[in-house]
Amino acid sequence: MTSPADWLLTSAPPFLKEPFVTTALLPNFTVGQWTSGTGPGTPLFDPVLGTELVRVDATGLDLPEAFRFARDTGGAALRALTYRQRAALLGATVKVLQANRAVYEDISVANSGTVKADTAVDVDGGIFTLGTYAKLGDGLGDVHHLTDGDAARLGKDPLFQSQHVLVPTRGVALFINAFNFPSWGLWEKAAPALLSGVPVIVKPATATAWLTQRMVKDVVDAGIWPAGALNIICGSSAGLLDQLQPFDVVSFTGSADTAAVIRSHPAVVQRSVRVNIEADSVNSALLLPSASPEDTQAALDLLVKEVTREMTVKSGQKCTAIRRVLVPEALYDSAAAAIAARLAKTTVGNPRNESVRMGALVSRTQLNAVREGLALLKIHTDVLHDGSATPLLDADAATACCIAPTLLGTRTPDTNPVVHDVEVFGPVATLMPYRDMPHALALIRRGQGSLVASLYGTDAAALSAAALELADSHGRVHVISPDVAALHTGHGNVMPQSLHGGPGRAGGGEELGGLKALNFYHRRSAIQASTAVLACI
Amino acid sequence: MTSPADWLLTSAPPFLKEPFVTTALLPNFTVGQWTSGTGPGTPLFDPVLGTELVRVDATGLDLPEAFRFARDTGGAALRALTYRQRAALLGATVKVLQANRAVYEDISVANSGTVKADTAVDVDGGIFTLGTYAKLGDGLGDVHHLTDGDAARLGKDPLFQSQHVLVPTRGVALFINAFNFPSWGLWEKAAPALLSGVPVIVKPATATAWLTQRMVKDVVDAGIWPAGALNIICGSSAGLLDQLQPFDVVSFTGSADTAAVIRSHPAVVQRSVRVNIEADSVNSALLLPSASPEDTQAALDLLVKEVTREMTVKSGQKCTAIRRVLVPEALYDSAAAAIAARLAKTTVGNPRNESVRMGALVSRTQLNAVREGLALLKIHTDVLHDGSATPLLDADAATACCIAPTLLGTRTPDTNPVVHDVEVFGPVATLMPYRDMPHALALIRRGQGSLVASLYGTDAAALSAAALELADSHGRVHVISPDVAALHTGHGNVMPQSLHGGPGRAGGGEELGGLKALNFYHRRSAIQASTAVLACI
Repeated sequence: MTSPADWLLTSAPPFLKEPFVTTALLPNFTVGQWTSGTGPGTPLFDPVLGTELVRVDATGLDLPEAFRFARDTGGAALRALTYRQRAALLGATVKVLQANRAVYEDISVANSGTVKADTAVDVDGGIFTLGTYAKLGDGLGDVHHLTDGDAARLGKDPLFQSQHVLVPTRGVALFINAFNFPSWGLWEKAAPALLSGVPVIVKPATATAWLTQRMVKDVVDAGIWPAGALNIICGSSAGLLDQLQPFDVVSFTGSADTAAVIRSHPAVVQRSVRVNIEADSVNSALLLPSASPEDTQAALDLLVKEVTREMTVKSGQKCTAIRRVLVPEALYDSAAAAIAARLAKTTVGNPRNESVRMGALVSRTQLNAVREGLALLKIHTDVLHDGSATPLLDADAATACCIAPTLLGTRTPDTNPVVHDVEVFGPVATLMPYRDMPHALALIRRGQGSLVASLYGTDAAALSAAALELADSHGRVHVISPDVAALHTGHGNVMPQSLHGGPGRAGGGEELGGLKALNFYHRRSAIQASTAVLACI
Repeated sequence: MTSPADWLLTSAPPFLKEPFVTTALLPNFTVGQWTSGTGPGTPLFDPVLGTELVRVDATGLDLPEAFRFARDTGGAALRALTYRQRAALLGATVKVLQANRAVYEDISVANSGTVKADTAVDVDGGIFTLGTYAKLGDGLGDVHHLTDGDAARLGKDPLFQSQHVLVPTRGVALFINAFNFPSWGLWEKAAPALLSGVPVIVKPATATAWLTQRMVKDVVDAGIWPAGALNIICGSSAGLLDQLQPFDVVSFTGSADTAAVIRSHPAVVQRSVRVNIEADSVNSALLLPSASPEDTQAALDLLVKEVTREMTVKSGQKCTAIRRVLVPEALYDSAAAAIAARLAKTTVGNPRNESVRMGALVSRTQLNAVREGLALLKIHTDVLHDGSATPLLDADAATACCIAPTLLGTRTPDTNPVVHDVEVFGPVATLMPYRDMPHALALIRRGQGSLVASLYGTDAAALSAAALELADSHGRVHVISPDVAALHTGHGNVMPQSLHGGPGRAGGGEELGGLKALNFYHRRSAIQASTAVLACI
């Protein structure tokens, strides 16, 4: 593997090499050109080695012109294409990203501290999502708008009817993205937006902006999209929201605090800019009771495996990761022992070492936040498996942002609000017992709305009943039964076919869900007209 | 007709008669009981005669308990019913309202100052909308949740799939309603909410709250809905938003300023409470060019008739009313003359007089606002028909909140921002010429998003093309061609089959649209499970 520093000196384009003293300053792409910020830049680091990798900066960009160009030039060019034509460009984008995959793996290891499997979740997950929308979009055909349902009569005479249509919004889609998915987070939003004919401006989280910037750069260099369709601004988000006009949309993934700032911005409050928020949530895994000891063991095994996986994938830095584990009271001790035993086998450290199963958190800031959150939870819980003393493999504990998984437990979840309220964004989960199903469902509802809950059991009727009970407070319910043990797609993996988002604390947003994702980027209108006029639509 | 004062003294229930000194204090219905506010109350007036009619007050209500009871008791009872059962209750509600229609007509004349035809738009429009949802709901069957689309495979093996479902949100629906539609404004929101299984708390606009309160009272007295399902709070909205929890929703119709207050409330910003806003908009009517003089005249006739009707129905107090009228340059003068000629025939005054075609604005506040807005527009426009000197029929101009229709005009709409920005919420519209279709569409877009635009012409292809061009900035496009002259449902009439709402300035909301209205009151969730589990759903 080429080290990032080597790569910068050998493979990076000249404009990246020349101006930097210590590290390269990544340029932004707006108004159809690459522009470096005029400030000193904010450095990005290797969270394992502690070395500075690159810098990002957006100082001095002409934001009004950047948004105007995307909205007018990019938007008009995209809308001139049909859905099928835009889908073909998504397909071409997939090819470019696949061809450059090795570079993304290098950047991911260096900047996100991820092991190969975790890099795949982000990089290949993003490419898979793009590919899915390429296929779905192809099926929409060579049309410029979508009809929405059937025409409805507006009276006894069938000559005058109402037909709903969906047309692309004539604005830009601003994405303010999270640090944990620099690839997937870009493409899961950009694929439906571009397919809809809406130009994209992405502002990646600074800590891991490099991968996002590089992917956009490769796609821009390949000349796939019309000018203005795909834009990236790295660095501070200052001033971005001020540019938003009534027909623009903004999609944010990140903390509830930042979400509140976005929601209360004048663009949203006064100009009705459409917002999608995907925020923190305290997701649950629920083991249902089984009738026989064999079934109980089978379901428990499924839970233990999935909880362990969810706690450790991407070092627990997934909005969808399991934070609360609910088991029948009688199974509390055995569940604790089984999860702890599996966690104890997790090797943590430098992702470049093939023996390492779990890499780093993305930054020192995140490591500190996880340590603080863990300290708070520990006050109110028992430590069932303590990761704090686990030695790191091939990494300096003084430098590396690594932390081994920790399982906490509380036998009194009803009187322990902190375990339902506090999300530690790392390899941490809390086990809790429940008395009966109403109790379990009530405890899960204490999360005030989550992205996903997973259910483990052997009784199909009980599983479907519980899934429907949780559907109003969860954007997704993932059901794992023995028949799909080898087939299911994982509690925390977001599939493009399914809705991603959740109510309440989870932000109230809706992303993906196949073609449902296009709704956010379209405007619905009812055309009331004679059948002769509707026949032309 | 019984006068409101007579009605209060003869037909009103005892609790309304006893405590009042001057007029009755209307009680609120929460927690399954009628409770009068403990304050002196805010008086409601007859806008024609100036007399005080009744008073409303919400002082002293236990709001947390009111919301809790609706959310928990009302919500659980509603969710225990199927869609078909709830639809049957909507049908029973229709019957109660139909049986009491005469009282609503009296209240409407007294409190809204409307002529019979305008009362019908509000009262019968509300009952018709309820009836439509009763029918639509019956078709949903005896189920407790809805499936949303087909199941999708999540891999090559078809055993593990994703099925989206829609389930009722477990919260209350708070409606903060506008003064212009005390009946329709209640039922167009309550019908889809109650059909969805979501309890309702309505806070009508104070000026015309009487009709809303009386309708709710009749329905409550009839014992149709389970306890907690239907609630009304009259008077100040202070403290209502503070009660909202993550799974509640709030739907507001009214000014952009109040919309901004709602959008920036912590319930929305921090707790992700779902919001629907329907705000002011500056709607347009567009006369398309025709090939022959005969077609031109036919289309112009349609436009003139509809513009005149829209300006005068409910004295122009409709969010959907035509505010801007666009015609080809060559037709500016003839359009002005034809509209002015029809407006000149409009008799304005006391709605109790059978000769009166147009009644009052709802209040002195509204009259003053219309006068101020008109004065502002007059600075920037020509007066093509002046209603200010029109004598009132059977009404004292010093007391009655009546104002005759005024047509303004500008030959320079490109450089006249005020005609695109300022909505006068009364019988006022502005005529403007356009050069070609791109110019016309650009002018309409200056409204920054509207509820509805109407198109008038004879060329089906041109009409459908223009409708699609305007679809992204209008929730509805209403196309009037000669073949539907006698059939079309009117520019400003909101049909339950069609979407009501609009982007940008219009608030960004979506209401009605047949069963699409149910989305706002449901939560979507993707259930990922084995086909055996999904078969139970």
